[in-house]
Amino acid sequence: MAHFNCSIAQTLEIVGEWWTPLVLRNIMMGQRRFEQIQADLGIARNILSDRLSTLVDAGVLTREQYHDAPVRYEYRLTEMGSDLFGSLMALMAWGDRWLSPDGPPVEVLHKDCGEVTRPVVACEHCHGELTRRNVRVRPGAGWRPPTGVTLPASV
Amino acid sequence: MAHFNCSIAQTLEIVGEWWTPLVLRNIMMGQRRFEQIQADLGIARNILSDRLSTLVDAGVLTREQYHDAPVRYEYRLTEMGSDLFGSLMALMAWGDRWLSPDGPPVEVLHKDCGEVTRPVVACEHCHGELTRRNVRVRPGAGWRPPTGVTLPASV
Repeated sequence: MAHFNCSIAQTLEIVGEWWTPLVLRNIMMGQRRFEQIQADLGIARNILSDRLSTLVDAGVLTREQYHDAPVRYEYRLTEMGSDLFGSLMALMAWGDRWLSPDGPPVEVLHKDCGEVTRPVVACEHCHGELTRRNVRVRPGAGWRPPTGVTLPASV
Repeated sequence: MAHFNCSIAQTLEIVGEWWTPLVLRNIMMGQRRFEQIQADLGIARNILSDRLSTLVDAGVLTREQYHDAPVRYEYRLTEMGSDLFGSLMALMAWGDRWLSPDGPPVEVLHKDCGEVTRPVVACEHCHGELTRRNVRVRPGAGWRPPTGVTLPASV
């Protein structure tokens, strides 16, 4: 998928496999150890091992040994990994809105302002929400045609 | 995965399969027809068909016949589907930052303010960026213990 000249595709190469976003969610909640994550998600050990290796190789996680015999590792988010928090919040906000008729399973308190908040994907300049209707996508500095993607004049 | 009392997991049940976010990206760019999407992504026909059916069943897309013989359908985003735009922007922004050393493949013009923007996942109240360090997650109205998720006092 990496041949697509598209940062969504590039991102999915690393975090787009089944289970990976939930593995990251658990690590963001403070679960650093294989056994914890495995027990909490009920994921097959070989799949969890594969997902963690992909994330370590990509620079999203570091792996540090915390026990000798047997050898055990802890996983920690790098800055690159921590920066995925916003994407997970955006996915959560969508599920809260469309799939949670009883209200959000969890609520998000923004400590900086003290409010219970809804994550919004917004413009860094005017802070307005970005929607399909109010943005236009066009080739940027890293654009490399030809690609698998047909970029329209406007989306 | 739906037994997890978590909107990220719920969202991934619908859009978390391999290819699905790219299929949605293409539809958001204006590709409404099976043949267009299939040719652009180079995805196997049975997989694309499966992904589109999941999205239609979930209410993310509608399917409308536009040709009789052979029968052909167009796919359009519902309001629920359009609302995934922000999540795709957030994933794109991460790839732009961490995986695009030559700069973003595409740039995003926010028509409302006229600026080329970077999508930011922000607080709806104060507009500050939401990060791992400045939010606290706690049980909300839809919380239903026990679940597969261990919610900590703070993340």
